[in-house]
Amino acid sequence: MAKDIFHELVKNALQKNGWQITHDPLTLKLSKRNIFIDLGAEKILLAEKNSQKIAVEIKSFVGFSVLTDFYHALGQYQLYSLALANDYPDWILYLAIPKETYKILKSDDLLSELLDKLQIQYLIFDSENKDVLQWIN
Amino acid sequence: MAKDIFHELVKNALQKNGWQITHDPLTLKLSKRNIFIDLGAEKILLAEKNSQKIAVEIKSFVGFSVLTDFYHALGQYQLYSLALANDYPDWILYLAIPKETYKILKSDDLLSELLDKLQIQYLIFDSENKDVLQWIN
Repeated sequence: MAKDIFHELVKNALQKNGWQITHDPLTLKLSKRNIFIDLGAEKILLAEKNSQKIAVEIKSFVGFSVLTDFYHALGQYQLYSLALANDYPDWILYLAIPKETYKILKSDDLLSELLDKLQIQYLIFDSENKDVLQWIN
Repeated sequence: MAKDIFHELVKNALQKNGWQITHDPLTLKLSKRNIFIDLGAEKILLAEKNSQKIAVEIKSFVGFSVLTDFYHALGQYQLYSLALANDYPDWILYLAIPKETYKILKSDDLLSELLDKLQIQYLIFDSENKDVLQWIN
C-alpha cells in the first residue's frame, strides 16, 4: 500500500484542528481480503458528551489524468463507504482532495452534477496553507 | 485511446446477435473534452416498429487487481451514463465484462451489494464461446 503524498499533510492538519488520529490506516474486512482507508480520527465533542468519528481516504490527483483519478476515487469511495457502514456504522467517510482538484471538478458541469448526485463527503485541503481544511457535506 | 483486448469479440458477438454497429467509438461531449464509449449499436424491433439503441463500454479486467479495475469501471460507468443521458437520452449504457469477472464480483457479498445498489446494466460475454452474450438489467 503506497502512502499517498499528501498523507502527512492531512494528518497534521487534522491534528492541528483538534482531531486525534486513531487509525493509520483503518483496516476493514472486505469479504476475503482487507482494505485500508488512509486515516481514522476522532474528535471529542464536549457539549454533546460524545465524539465524532471519521475515516479519511486521501487522494492526491497527481496522476496522468484528473478524469482517470476521479473514476478511481469515485468507485473506491462508494465501496469503502459500504464496508465502513458494515464494520463501523457510526463513522463517516470523507474523501480528502486538494483544493485545486475540487475547483477543477466543480467547474465542469457534468462532473459537478455527478458529484452532487453521489452524495460524497469531502475534506478539501490546501497544499500551500497546510492547516486549512474545508468540510463539504 | 487504447482499444480494449475484448473489443472485437464483443463487436462480433453483437453483430451475430442482430445488432448493427453504429458507432466505433461513440463520442460524447464532456464539457471541454470528448469522451469515447467503445461501441454504439442499434437493433430494429419489427414488432414495435422502432429500434433499441445501446452504448457499450468494454472492460477486460486484465489489470493487476480486479478491485482496482472495478473502481475504475464503476466511476467511468456513472459518468458516461450521465453524459449519454444528456446527448442521447434514448440510449442505454451497458458495461461489458467477461463472464469470469462477473462471477468473481458477485461472489463477494459487499461488491455484490454495491453492484445491485448502483443499478448498472451489464453485458456479460464469454471469451471462449464467442457468440454468447448475457444481458443483466
